[in-house]
Amino acid sequence: MPHKMMRMRRAGVVRGRAQRPSMLAIAGDSAAGKTTLTRGLIEALGPDRSTSICVDDYHRYDRQERKSQPFTVLHPDCNYVAIMEQHLQLLAMGEPILKPVYDHSTGQLARPQLVEPREFVIVEGLLPLHTKLARACFDVSVYLNPPEEIRRDWKVGRDTKERGYTTEQVLAELDRRESDSASFIRPQRANCDIVVRFSPIPGRDDPPDTPFSAELLLRPTIGHPDLTGILSEGDQHAIHLKLARDEDGRPVDALHVHGYAPPEDSAVAQKALWAEFGIQSPPPESLGLLADGQRSEPLAITQLLLLYHLLEAAR
Amino acid sequence: MPHKMMRMRRAGVVRGRAQRPSMLAIAGDSAAGKTTLTRGLIEALGPDRSTSICVDDYHRYDRQERKSQPFTVLHPDCNYVAIMEQHLQLLAMGEPILKPVYDHSTGQLARPQLVEPREFVIVEGLLPLHTKLARACFDVSVYLNPPEEIRRDWKVGRDTKERGYTTEQVLAELDRRESDSASFIRPQRANCDIVVRFSPIPGRDDPPDTPFSAELLLRPTIGHPDLTGILSEGDQHAIHLKLARDEDGRPVDALHVHGYAPPEDSAVAQKALWAEFGIQSPPPESLGLLADGQRSEPLAITQLLLLYHLLEAAR
Repeated sequence: MPHKMMRMRRAGVVRGRAQRPSMLAIAGDSAAGKTTLTRGLIEALGPDRSTSICVDDYHRYDRQERKSQPFTVLHPDCNYVAIMEQHLQLLAMGEPILKPVYDHSTGQLARPQLVEPREFVIVEGLLPLHTKLARACFDVSVYLNPPEEIRRDWKVGRDTKERGYTTEQVLAELDRRESDSASFIRPQRANCDIVVRFSPIPGRDDPPDTPFSAELLLRPTIGHPDLTGILSEGDQHAIHLKLARDEDGRPVDALHVHGYAPPEDSAVAQKALWAEFGIQSPPPESLGLLADGQRSEPLAITQLLLLYHLLEAAR
Repeated sequence: MPHKMMRMRRAGVVRGRAQRPSMLAIAGDSAAGKTTLTRGLIEALGPDRSTSICVDDYHRYDRQERKSQPFTVLHPDCNYVAIMEQHLQLLAMGEPILKPVYDHSTGQLARPQLVEPREFVIVEGLLPLHTKLARACFDVSVYLNPPEEIRRDWKVGRDTKERGYTTEQVLAELDRRESDSASFIRPQRANCDIVVRFSPIPGRDDPPDTPFSAELLLRPTIGHPDLTGILSEGDQHAIHLKLARDEDGRPVDALHVHGYAPPEDSAVAQKALWAEFGIQSPPPESLGLLADGQRSEPLAITQLLLLYHLLEAAR
């Protein structure tokens, strides 16, 4: 047996080591904003240098089969978690994978697709941070944590417009999923480097069309850019940094990006941030684009920070 | 980056090392007898201890897409060879795979299947020995090498009976494949441990219902059981061993198993072989069963020898 292992290793080594990509995880519940966040990053990095996968493709059962299962798609037993871990490891090592495909429109499992890793790989979905081995594959990880009532609005909006469900069906499904969501999705918040929350600022009486603000908890689990310099100087209208305690009492930097700030102020902050990252070109224009074509400066600044981490991991 | 690799390694090591299966490759052209050979082995080993996969599932294009391709399914470019190599390595390391599925009845690529390695894994198909890395994954490898005219008969018989083609269609397809077969399938003969040829014995005038004989070239690339003792003693009516030169001049043992021998003689030889392998129980009854329900003693002896190698690799 050791003989065979050695033969495999030697035969594999001959082809040299593949380039290892920078890997970002974006975890969060259904309709938490994962795809919107991902889209702007891929456009900024360029599709020739980056690729994204959704780990919801690792569903073990199709929609029909799930009807006789006691759990929802949020449950790890409803997904090929061991295969997801394996594929994340392969991608992290720079190897291609033949990724399963779940077709949301038909609810069926379809023909798999070849995914070749690029310089930057973004992995989004319900459970990318569920296991220790999966988490170990990422250079930086994000948990999207909107207030539940906002996520419910987003899910009703999307699933009625794009997936052909009625509002009643979506609300019933949300109730059915609540237990699995609490058990398996939300615990991932504790296992990421950055917690992102888009929401109105509590206590402020902004007009209803004010863009959502963002709160980013920057955990010391990875090295964040030093924001104290630029953010303590001059106007902090658009963005400010505050030392805080996390839910579990651990120290954390809370970066607040104000949706009510005028876009000009936000643009100044973005340019200063971008320059601080040591990049000469202007910030990519794809950042901050919402699904409906509107712009969100807090989203743009969130994406800027993630770009920084992806580029930093590639060094 | 080294940090992430170390995290992945540590997170993976925690779960301990999976048991590594004994792996047998059975390569050969379409209708060479791979499935028949495999079926008896899996039944003998027991489906709880063994599993088989067909690497023709790694086709890159479905039947419709292939119509606009310049090559046939025998061509490596028509298959996900790098993914096949990856999956063979994973199985050899005792890891599960999510295997693609090609549906022969519809010609479409379907939903993939989870394959968990067992103690014994048999990998059959058109190209399992095509690359060095794939070959390195096996403990023992076989190339099925029937005379072309016999294989053509088998293919016409099967494809007209089981796959709904006309004789003319099958013959035209065989012609279309000939060039790829010569370039990619038959070269695998040079890269296996055992070459198996079922055919009538040239020069003998046996009645037409005489079972085919088997010639097994046993290459010194692996350690074969010592057959000189039992086969030089007493009756060699059913089976004999002859020192020979391979096509390329290298020394090889040629084991001849005579289809014209009475089954009783073959049974004696099988028992002697089985005892020589050091196994107490009688030889499994599933050995030697043909697709049509008939028995072939030369097939049974071929399968016995492969069982020996699978069991030996597991020690």
